[in-house]
Amino acid sequence: MSKTDLADIYRGYIACLNAQDWSRLGQFVDDGAQHNGRPFGLAGYRVMLEQDFRNIPDLHFNIELLASDPPYIASRLCFDCSPRGSFLGLPVNGKKVRFSENVFYEFRAGKIVQVWSVIDKAAIEAQL
Amino acid sequence: MSKTDLADIYRGYIACLNAQDWSRLGQFVDDGAQHNGRPFGLAGYRVMLEQDFRNIPDLHFNIELLASDPPYIASRLCFDCSPRGSFLGLPVNGKKVRFSENVFYEFRAGKIVQVWSVIDKAAIEAQL
Repeated sequence: MSKTDLADIYRGYIACLNAQDWSRLGQFVDDGAQHNGRPFGLAGYRVMLEQDFRNIPDLHFNIELLASDPPYIASRLCFDCSPRGSFLGLPVNGKKVRFSENVFYEFRAGKIVQVWSVIDKAAIEAQL
Repeated sequence: MSKTDLADIYRGYIACLNAQDWSRLGQFVDDGAQHNGRPFGLAGYRVMLEQDFRNIPDLHFNIELLASDPPYIASRLCFDCSPRGSFLGLPVNGKKVRFSENVFYEFRAGKIVQVWSVIDKAAIEAQL
């Protein structure tokens, strides 16, 4: 797959998340997907995302930087949102915070099979 | 520049860091380089790295994953090291910890001009 095609698929995935269109998630995420080493599969991956949107009602994924090197996508995501209660163990309690996530994805047959994500927790701490 | 050439330059940069060969750092880092939005320049960048090696005597950069999409490199670095005293505000005090850094670099004329780095602080906390 070309790097442009893979980047387009990834942008479709992010649009699917932002639309919370969970019925289409299986077009982008493999049945056996792993997230940070956890063998979530598609079902567990969906549960994680639904929970994210419940905990962060104004969650929106913004792609700040994208590197496409098939079968890998690396993306810097930027968030500007208000997590309820505790977030990453921090007492955010609905405060608006800005932070980044630098994340790698491995694709197979056009679907995400592995995710390695790091969220900038220090940036959130600095805003509390 | 081809993606292979840029990846080779990046591997040369990491080898330079691991050798602590600061006299060669200017081959890889631009005079006006920025790190997480801080306008360090080459001199400030070198100070940051020298300090890292002072604070973490067994520091070694290991590339776990590399995506090359010129002018960007995205790299997942893996560390297995023993920071002295406080590290990222955490009382590590010489304990051996394992953690990742997901980091993006923008290159211009073969040199790093921008770095966007996120270190997995939560992984370190979980080991203390």
